[in-house]
Amino acid sequence: MKRTYIKEIKEAIDEELFLKGWVHKISDLGQLTFIMLRDKTGIIQLVLEKGTAEHLRLEMSVEVTGTRVFNEKAPGNPKGVELHVSGLKILGKAYYDTLPFSINQREIKASLEAQLDYRTISLRSPKLRAVFKVQEEIIEAFRNFLRGNDFSEINTPKIIATGTEGGSEMFTVNYFDRRAFLTQSPQFYKQMMVGAGFERVYEVGHAYRAELHNTWRHLNEYVSLDLEMGFIQDETDLMDLEEEYLRFLFKHLEESCSSELAMYNVELPSELNIPRIPLSKAQEILLDKFGKRSPTGNIDAEGEILFSKYIKETYSCDFVFLTEYPIPKRPMYAMPDENHLGMTRSFDLIYKGLEITTGGQRIHDYDMFKENIKMFGLNPEDFGFYLDSFKYGMPPHGGLAIGLERITLKILNLKNIREATLIPRDIKRMEP
Amino acid sequence: MKRTYIKEIKEAIDEELFLKGWVHKISDLGQLTFIMLRDKTGIIQLVLEKGTAEHLRLEMSVEVTGTRVFNEKAPGNPKGVELHVSGLKILGKAYYDTLPFSINQREIKASLEAQLDYRTISLRSPKLRAVFKVQEEIIEAFRNFLRGNDFSEINTPKIIATGTEGGSEMFTVNYFDRRAFLTQSPQFYKQMMVGAGFERVYEVGHAYRAELHNTWRHLNEYVSLDLEMGFIQDETDLMDLEEEYLRFLFKHLEESCSSELAMYNVELPSELNIPRIPLSKAQEILLDKFGKRSPTGNIDAEGEILFSKYIKETYSCDFVFLTEYPIPKRPMYAMPDENHLGMTRSFDLIYKGLEITTGGQRIHDYDMFKENIKMFGLNPEDFGFYLDSFKYGMPPHGGLAIGLERITLKILNLKNIREATLIPRDIKRMEP
Repeated sequence: MKRTYIKEIKEAIDEELFLKGWVHKISDLGQLTFIMLRDKTGIIQLVLEKGTAEHLRLEMSVEVTGTRVFNEKAPGNPKGVELHVSGLKILGKAYYDTLPFSINQREIKASLEAQLDYRTISLRSPKLRAVFKVQEEIIEAFRNFLRGNDFSEINTPKIIATGTEGGSEMFTVNYFDRRAFLTQSPQFYKQMMVGAGFERVYEVGHAYRAELHNTWRHLNEYVSLDLEMGFIQDETDLMDLEEEYLRFLFKHLEESCSSELAMYNVELPSELNIPRIPLSKAQEILLDKFGKRSPTGNIDAEGEILFSKYIKETYSCDFVFLTEYPIPKRPMYAMPDENHLGMTRSFDLIYKGLEITTGGQRIHDYDMFKENIKMFGLNPEDFGFYLDSFKYGMPPHGGLAIGLERITLKILNLKNIREATLIPRDIKRMEP
Repeated sequence: MKRTYIKEIKEAIDEELFLKGWVHKISDLGQLTFIMLRDKTGIIQLVLEKGTAEHLRLEMSVEVTGTRVFNEKAPGNPKGVELHVSGLKILGKAYYDTLPFSINQREIKASLEAQLDYRTISLRSPKLRAVFKVQEEIIEAFRNFLRGNDFSEINTPKIIATGTEGGSEMFTVNYFDRRAFLTQSPQFYKQMMVGAGFERVYEVGHAYRAELHNTWRHLNEYVSLDLEMGFIQDETDLMDLEEEYLRFLFKHLEESCSSELAMYNVELPSELNIPRIPLSKAQEILLDKFGKRSPTGNIDAEGEILFSKYIKETYSCDFVFLTEYPIPKRPMYAMPDENHLGMTRSFDLIYKGLEITTGGQRIHDYDMFKENIKMFGLNPEDFGFYLDSFKYGMPPHGGLAIGLERITLKILNLKNIREATLIPRDIKRMEP
């Protein structure tokens, strides 16, 4: 007999059904026992005769056969339907004394630390698992959007020989008899692949930061949605592309995740027009409106929050592009802006007070790049193959990266980035 | 003026076109210069008046405007069309003395090592880049097939605290003040996520093997197409699923990569029925037919090649599932087969003489798993969170992993796995 998913029960043709899932709740009412059965797709009430459910414990996995009965009082998701059980088999036994915490209440009453320690339990909560359905669809939308725009998917190495993009804050790897690093981003490789004829590339992959921060918004291992595009005019092509992706994303999420968004009371904007504001202007506004002083050539975390507030009030928008960052504050590959002396053609995207993207046009001319590397006090010879790949007609290009966990966090209005990470890695946490 | 891709030139509505790409070939015929222009999608002949192409060098990136002219003698891809150029602008200059090797000949006449050293150049060859179009579509088909079968995509950490799956042949990472490892597979996490209520999960991600092998078929960093499925009957569900994926894949490749497959003279099978043969039977056949002795409980690389030959001749199939591997030869989580004493419910898939998949049903019962770990001479306490997650009703489950570079290699009949890797990492190669 073919298994039916709980979400499909109401539409099933047969009355006799075969279900699988976990025991979510047990209510013993003497002659009858009511069980809430949970699978990947929903929760349904099972009705069992006295004596047939005595060995059941919470969170055992089971399979059941029975008759579907429409009953408007039956709770669950979907509501209004229950299964009168004729056969039940335990598939996965329980070996615990007490569950670490209860997951059949409206909210999990356990610390985030406990939820992360017991991921096998906490993610059984449909509300917590919903975060990762949304996350999956953020990635799916990224890929679909870029495929539709002639981008190629690439897979580039995460073990690299030299830490050329600064070199600090990198994890070291013992690679046979040599020291290697875990990459902070696929930056060099995605640029190389643009030059290698792919023209437009993207990669969804892990990136690593050996930062000592232990905050609500930092992870030491995260997923980066990276893209790089050749033959661009300038950085506005990239901001246009990202804006278009966000519109595509929100439409995709409305279609694929409406119930998950509803669990978090999220309404996505139906229109999106993201203001683009030079950094220096943002700094002025922060000083004028909030008396907030910013560090040279940047705004800090508090500034991002305040400025987002201002943007929301002024433009009714949750996003803002900050542009025209000064040369010394951006990587050595950032393209200088000939219209704004000392500035680069780079940008950040701030979403509800959090930076979720850094991007920009890159230098593509070999001589100019070599000079810029020197100007940064670095040695062009240290850039070996990377710099070398600029000798062969590298086209004008640029790119950007979106932090997957950060955009997930902000879409769902979560409080801590670890909530948007299946199995987080931070300075303290290596397990599970 | 909007850019037109070369593959779309014949169908373009306007005669006046704007193209971008790289200078693939230059033929100076006195009054006229013929340039082959290459972009991501094709190659077209440009016709330029004397004096307009003097500064051009091979592999510069350029943009050109001109008039489309149908000319049945014009070479290129597509053939039969050329552009009479009215304007040309160099976008990316050339800074080389001589190219490391020529890429405008039928084949690249350079060693694989040189091709890998100069990836920015070698991949400009449409034939070499085609490998990665096929690879991209292998991944896309994997995702589409699994999404269509109710699988969820997950992203799990690659930095792990303990090397529990044997522990040897792992790269160590210096994680702040601790020692950590790069994961050999997402095995533990994908099992955990099945138990955490996702039921069916997949991940496309990097895996690491610190093996000292330096062969045509080994990489130290590779991409693993991993899946894990809950509520299965037994390992046949997994073999059925993989077979169905391969059928789906071949259809997908025919639709998305016909020109790339043609470059490699590949014809994919229109039907697929993969024989499933117990390992001991395969060993017998190897001895009988080829006088080939196999190691205990396995067949070696030579045996895989010979046995594939036998299967091809006997079943007209490029694939064979080997089943019933003995317990000591499989990981401690492999499910024993109660019908075949001492054997496991696990399998390998051999494709044209190369193992591309290992899979099987896993032990799901906590007590049984604990006993099995002990039987392997390991200490259950070392398995912390992983073993712990089996206490809460873990359903029967199993999974498999496909080596992305290996399946790419075999589909295209390449000789070395590095040809199927954008930027390979092996015991000697850390760059580019």
